[in-house]
Formats: sequence, C-alpha cells, structure tokens
Amino acid sequence: MKSRREFLSLKALQDKIINEGKVLSGDVLKVDSFLNHQIDPQLMQAIGQEFAELYKDAGLTKILTIESSGIAPAVMAGLILGIPVVFARKSKSVTLTDNFYTTEVYSFTKKITSTLTVSKDYVKEDDVILIIDDFLANGEAAKGLLDIVKQAGATTSGIGIVIEKGFQPGGKLLREQGYRVDSLAIVSSLESGKVQFA
Amino acid sequence: MKSRREFLSLKALQDKIINEGKVLSGDVLKVDSFLNHQIDPQLMQAIGQEFAELYKDAGLTKILTIESSGIAPAVMAGLILGIPVVFARKSKSVTLTDNFYTTEVYSFTKKITSTLTVSKDYVKEDDVILIIDDFLANGEAAKGLLDIVKQAGATTSGIGIVIEKGFQPGGKLLREQGYRVDSLAIVSSLESGKVQFA
Repeated sequence: MKSRREFLSLKALQDKIINEGKVLSGDVLKVDSFLNHQIDPQLMQAIGQEFAELYKDAGLTKILTIESSGIAPAVMAGLILGIPVVFARKSKSVTLTDNFYTTEVYSFTKKITSTLTVSKDYVKEDDVILIIDDFLANGEAAKGLLDIVKQAGATTSGIGIVIEKGFQPGGKLLREQGYRVDSLAIVSSLESGKVQFA
Repeated sequence: MKSRREFLSLKALQDKIINEGKVLSGDVLKVDSFLNHQIDPQLMQAIGQEFAELYKDAGLTKILTIESSGIAPAVMAGLILGIPVVFARKSKSVTLTDNFYTTEVYSFTKKITSTLTVSKDYVKEDDVILIIDDFLANGEAAKGLLDIVKQAGATTSGIGIVIEKGFQPGGKLLREQGYRVDSLAIVSSLESGKVQFA
C-alpha cells in the first residue's frame, strides 16, 4: 500500500511538472500554477501524505519550513502527522520581539541574501524536526534551516523536498553530510527547455 | 449540524486566542503560536471547514489570499471546496514574468507600503473568488485583494477572515461597501492587554 501511494503521488507530481512547469533561462523551473503562486490543495495533500508516510515512525515533534511556498506542503504533512509547523520568516516582522534564531541565506534564483528568523519559543532542544521545502537546488535554504535547528540544539530527522534539481549540488552535498533527504520529484535535466526526471 | 460545527471551531479559535495570544503595544495582537509563525494544522483545518461550509453554495472557482499567513487557512478551505488557491506576493520574484496585476497596500502594523502582485494567468474574468486572510484591521490588505479581483474583471463572493479586530475600521468599511465579510473571531477590545470578543 505504501509503494502504491508513493507511486500515485509521485506520478501526479511529475505529470504536473511536465504539463505545467515552465523552464526559464537555463536552470529555473517555474511551477507557479500549482506550488509557487497558485496552489493545488489536492496535490499538496498527496505530498503531505507522502512525507507523513515516510516519517511516520521518526518520532517527529515539529515541521520546519520557510515562507511562502513551503507552507502548503508542510501544513498538509503536519495535519496528518498531528504536529505543528513552524515557518521561518525571511525578514523580521515588527510583531516579533528579540527572541530569535537567525541565519543568512543566499538565493541563487533571486540573487539576494536574506535573513531567516525563527522564534526561540517554537524550536526547542527536545524537538525532532522534519525540514520541508518546495525546492532543493544549491541547498542554501536547507542549510539555513539546518543551522537554525543546530542553534536550538534540536534534532533534524530529515529533509523533505517537493522538487529537487538533481543537476545542482544541494542534494548531493546534504546526503554526503549524512542527512536523510527525501525528494518527491528529482529533475535530472532542464536542457533545451525540457524537464527530465532522474 | 452547521451551527454545531461553527460553534466548535469558533470556540477552539477563541480559546487559542485567549490562551496563547499576546497583546503588544496598544492594538497589536500577536498569535505567533498557531497562525503567524507556528501553525496549528488541526485548527487550520477547522477554520478551512468553516469557510467551506459558509461558501459551499457560492459557486466559487478560486480562493485568493496573501503570503504568508493567509496560505494555511486558504489551502485548507481550498482542499475541502476542491478549488485552487492563489496567494498574492508582496514583492516581485525574479521567476515571475511581466504579466501581473499589482496594487499598493499599506501595513499599519509594519508601517510599510508593499506591492501585491498576482499573475494574470491565475485570476480571470469568469472567476468567482473568496478572499481569505488571517487578520482584518484597517482593511488595507483586503482592499488590495479586492482591487486585484476588480482589475481582473472577476467576481468577489466574499471575504473570509480568521481574526477581525472589530475596534478598527476595516470590517465596518467593507460591509458598508456591500461586501460579505465572514470573520471567525471578532475581537472587540484589547484594552489593558485583555482580549475581549464581540
């Protein structure tokens, strides 16, 4: 049953990427129709079920993601696992007080460095954390979240990714460092504007 | 059954606000433990069910919200209603091309003006839209989203709000303009740091 469900959700995700994804300028894959601007809630539920199934025995206490595109898949996984989701903010909000973990993250897509902030109230030493994000490319965002978990003295159980760009170094790097990385779709190439999977 | 479910989710939301909400400097209500930083997926599901029940006969085709805190309740409502969610971005992303509706929104809490952008691909003339947002205070964000729907020539069916600050003018203003506004919790006062409901 597990393999059947995995197959179904991975297939639906791959179909969406092929049918609706747009390849821009070299290595940018735009999936604004179901993940990064418009959101397909049914697909997010299937993705959440997948992560929940993969980590059901991991003793997770919390999911950590980044605003904005990580929120939908993370909340669906959190709903099924029955645990809270924390999203790192990309810049300080005036309604947050000075009680944060912060870390710098460089976005190769946007060519900007931003500061991730997570309140010390919501990631604690005894937390067992699943990191969820929409994309894994160079691994900058994941490294930022890992750094926050480390600052808190908490445990990272794994990293759940919706779409990994397998031709960029992030996934390899994180796996070599010993992290469990589960990517639901791994794109092996965007050459000639065509999406190919690993 | 409808009134029973409404009662249950409103009660859970009010309890959360009373038990976990923090009143800051006059009129800021911080609900970072379940909505604006950490997210309670079960509560988001109850909120989504509430919006879905209220708008089940409205012929909705799409939900429109704003990143980041509107996403979780909007996606839960979209899941139950079986319709997509679009979140307005607060600043342009390099992966979006020049095909937007834009509008300026002033945040009294953050004291900044930001530009909301929504792709013309995802809000169309024949769309019937439910706007969902986390807070309604002065109504700036809602007015921005209404403006985008108007630019698209689409129809706004209503505005679903998780927490309305009834002592600020947004709700009254929108209702006077003839909009249907459904707020799941209406805070009537934050005086002396104490949350009171309407």
